Amino acid sequence: MKKYDYIILGSGPVAMHLLAKFERTTNKVLLIEKGLWGGTCPNTGCQPKIFIEGTVRPVLNSYYLAGKGIKEAAKIDWPTLMARKKKIWAAFHKNERASMTSENTDTVQGTGILTGPHTVKVNDQEYEGKQIVIGTGLSPRDLDIPGGEYAITNNEFFDLDQLPKRAIVIGGGYVAMELATILQAAGTEVTILQHSDRLLRPFDQDYVQELKQIMEERGIKFHMNAPVKQIAKDGDQYTVITTNGENFDTDLVINAAGRKPNVEGMGLEEVGVDFDSKRGIKVNEHMQTSVPSIFAAGDVADNGQPNLTPVAWVDAYHIINFVENGEKSPIKYPPVATNAFTYPEIAQVGIHEDEMEEGDYVKTLDLSDMFFSIGEGDFHAKLKVILNKDGVVRGASELSIHAAEDINNFVPLIGRKDPNKFVEENLTFAFPTPANNLDTLFR
Amino acid sequence: MKKYDYIILGSGPVAMHLLAKFERTTNKVLLIEKGLWGGTCPNTGCQPKIFIEGTVRPVLNSYYLAGKGIKEAAKIDWPTLMARKKKIWAAFHKNERASMTSENTDTVQGTGILTGPHTVKVNDQEYEGKQIVIGTGLSPRDLDIPGGEYAITNNEFFDLDQLPKRAIVIGGGYVAMELATILQAAGTEVTILQHSDRLLRPFDQDYVQELKQIMEERGIKFHMNAPVKQIAKDGDQYTVITTNGENFDTDLVINAAGRKPNVEGMGLEEVGVDFDSKRGIKVNEHMQTSVPSIFAAGDVADNGQPNLTPVAWVDAYHIINFVENGEKSPIKYPPVATNAFTYPEIAQVGIHEDEMEEGDYVKTLDLSDMFFSIGEGDFHAKLKVILNKDGVVRGASELSIHAAEDINNFVPLIGRKDPNKFVEENLTFAFPTPANNLDTLFR
Ligand SMILES: Cc1cc2nc3c(=O)[nH]c(=O)nc-3n(C[C@H](O)[C@H](O)[C@H](O)COP(=O)(O)OP(=O)(O)OC[C@H]3O[C@@H](n4cnc5c(N)ncnc54)[C@H](O)[C@@H]3O)c2cc1C
Ligand SMILES: Cc1cc2nc3c(=O)[nH]c(=O)nc-3n(C[C@H](O)[C@H](O)[C@H](O)COP(=O)(O)OP(=O)(O)OC[C@H]3O[C@@H](n4cnc5c(N)ncnc54)[C@H](O)[C@@H]3O)c2cc1C
Repeated sequence: MKKYDYIILGSGPVAMHLLAKFERTTNKVLLIEKGLWGGTCPNTGCQPKIFIEGTVRPVLNSYYLAGKGIKEAAKIDWPTLMARKKKIWAAFHKNERASMTSENTDTVQGTGILTGPHTVKVNDQEYEGKQIVIGTGLSPRDLDIPGGEYAITNNEFFDLDQLPKRAIVIGGGYVAMELATILQAAGTEVTILQHSDRLLRPFDQDYVQELKQIMEERGIKFHMNAPVKQIAKDGDQYTVITTNGENFDTDLVINAAGRKPNVEGMGLEEVGVDFDSKRGIKVNEHMQTSVPSIFAAGDVADNGQPNLTPVAWVDAYHIINFVENGEKSPIKYPPVATNAFTYPEIAQVGIHEDEMEEGDYVKTLDLSDMFFSIGEGDFHAKLKVILNKDGVVRGASELSIHAAEDINNFVPLIGRKDPNKFVEENLTFAFPTPANNLDTLFR
Repeated sequence: MKKYDYIILGSGPVAMHLLAKFERTTNKVLLIEKGLWGGTCPNTGCQPKIFIEGTVRPVLNSYYLAGKGIKEAAKIDWPTLMARKKKIWAAFHKNERASMTSENTDTVQGTGILTGPHTVKVNDQEYEGKQIVIGTGLSPRDLDIPGGEYAITNNEFFDLDQLPKRAIVIGGGYVAMELATILQAAGTEVTILQHSDRLLRPFDQDYVQELKQIMEERGIKFHMNAPVKQIAKDGDQYTVITTNGENFDTDLVINAAGRKPNVEGMGLEEVGVDFDSKRGIKVNEHMQTSVPSIFAAGDVADNGQPNLTPVAWVDAYHIINFVENGEKSPIKYPPVATNAFTYPEIAQVGIHEDEMEEGDYVKTLDLSDMFFSIGEGDFHAKLKVILNKDGVVRGASELSIHAAEDINNFVPLIGRKDPNKFVEENLTFAFPTPANNLDTLFR
């Protein structure tokens, strides 16, 4: 049986960051991937999305400036965009595998199945590892309704050759909102069906309401409290039926309603690794599962953190620190900044208003009257920061076309009592940029 | 004679930041402005520029994506854009005066002239101040050649109703490069004439060469080592003649060749305030001039710093700390981030390659193959960081369409020996954003 220091299940961001650190060691690694090399983020998640949004941004930007200094809004040419996407990605996952393979790292295509605390089987071959890291991520949760199989997911969306005339997006999380933004910008009539009365749960709900309104003004329709009970197919066309009895005829149905941990069919029960089929694999403060030689990290781990790529990095780094450097202190997550790449973007770090405690207060900044925002047509831009009674920064929310980048300026401030000191030490940020808002807020 | 705690000459960023801090004090202030309230930055500098660039960015962004996912590049409608600009700015400087006037702050329109260490005359009225702060900024330096008066400057550029068919921009600094970018994007045939062989002196010269080439590919013509010796006028048309004997027929000539400190006609010699007519007013480490009750700050002060708005803020804050709080330690400038709002942008903080010392080394990162950049058509994006032999970050340079915002991520790192620690503490920046590059660089 071939022996390794580490066996990694799944080649996503978890694996990528483990390998990056292993480069400086002599550890022997076996990496197992059952699907696309590189995992969700670069193949069917963050990266194809951000690639397409590179086109969406100037199109919507010019839409808001049309008649105000721009002659006409630019338009998306969907088939060309998608042909370009496919060409760029054609060899990606193979190259990714090649780049992950090295003198110290073997790669195997197949489903990894645990057979013991130190052993994994792939394609009927067994391997031994001092440590095993499970980074198997999430998959779209099937719509458990008649016709649920007619809905596509993010796995198919980014290869959509032809733009549908109409689309129904089921869900109200960031993926639903982002795909709706993309399709509407490209010219599709988009309707969002959300089962509850809340969208974008982890974000400031005032800003979410405003974002919803902005999206509605561009023509996206929202139906809240509208759980779907059936999808019927008739030729090329679908009818989506809600429990309220509403019917929606459409050309495409997208299931962006939720994702579930990849915990099945990989021997967890057999080997005694505790997990919950909704929350994922149980881990302690060192990312160890109930079997100490087996770790879990990233989306599949029940780590109490949002399922985002940088969280997978933090998990991966901690495992290495713990195993290789004998790190004693429990894993510590930096404040996690998160963003929906809608238009405008909505971003969050730390707490939002709903999570405020006694004595906390809010500072707001209207960005929409800054020449910067007026010039870009960012007519709704705004920012709020939550501080506690001692002046410690607890959270920040932003609605603007630069929210993702700007929210990062608040990451080093979360938990700091002296934001003004940080600002004074860095007062000479390039001007005019969103970072200069810090001076206005904390001078 | 009316008495004040502070008399401030000039209502630019220096004054704005002094007033912001005075809000929490009972200081009586007299603010004197001879031109537009708010100074250069909001009236004829940073702000009208960034307003117009709000339109330029999606236009050029869509230009690079045309045929790649966008049908056609968006186009600028110059007369509409400028009409909008004028409307937005119509009441600006009056409102600015109103917002600067308060119970504790009087404002006077007129030229302030020093008459003694504690006295200033405006419109033949004399006032007394415990402290006097000179924040009179810079003005365009006249072209000292026959016909020099035909060239417009930034003072007129931002009110240009009609787009010229052809324009000559004299100069090679950031203002010249930015105005050339704007005009070409709007449809003008632009030629830059630079007297020396160097453009954008404070920036990485490899990146400057690449930027020049990118701008040339869009149609901007550069003539280097081409000092202008004459401008001739013939009806609506001008001919610009260089010392090399080249002739350029054009519809508009822009003088962006340099700026000079506003030190004349304000009694500096009479009161004994030392200055240099090119470098500005001499100041010590507390921004005091040779007359201790008289301070100078911002662009007009010979403070050894670039002439940028955030530097004016640092000066203003230090004066207050010194006078009000008895600050003893000399003024300390944070690393100054600077950016040319060209397309792509070019940004700098700390040292660049030409300033490297023995043992320093360069880390580079090609951003152009990131999905982020590919999606946006940012095909030349790149980044370099300079570290010394102990791993201390000394400088960073970036060429990308997000350079201004991204360079700010390096500001807190300059002078730090442990950039990887900073990165680890902030690993969960929103993804995918330029800030994530820090992880790639310092993991
Ligand atoms: C549409 C979409 C957009 C997103 N956008 C963002 C964003 O903007 N920012 C952000 O931070 N995050 C985003 N995410 C989330 C991000 O993709 C995940 O957080 C990240 O990929 C998690 O990394 P991971 O390594 O834990 O798992 P994954 O990337 O999911 O990788 C897991 C891999 O394991 C493989 N696998 C599963 N079971 C086995 C097995 N038994 N044996 C072998 N291999 C197995 C899978 O095939 C998969 O390749 C997005 C996700 C989606 C779906
Ligand atoms: C085209 C252009 C673009 C720019 N872009 C940027 C940028 O992107 N980022 C950046 O950081 N900086 C930029 N700058 C530089 C920025 O404008 C200056 O650094 C900033 O305005 C300096 O502030 P200040 O208060 O020292 O002087 P100023 O803003 O110049 O204000 C000085 C004021 O003093 C008044 N004054 C002069 N003499 C007297 C007198 N005797 N009595 C009374 N009043 C008087 C003047 O009328 C003026 O209003 C730009 C400049 C220009 C020209």
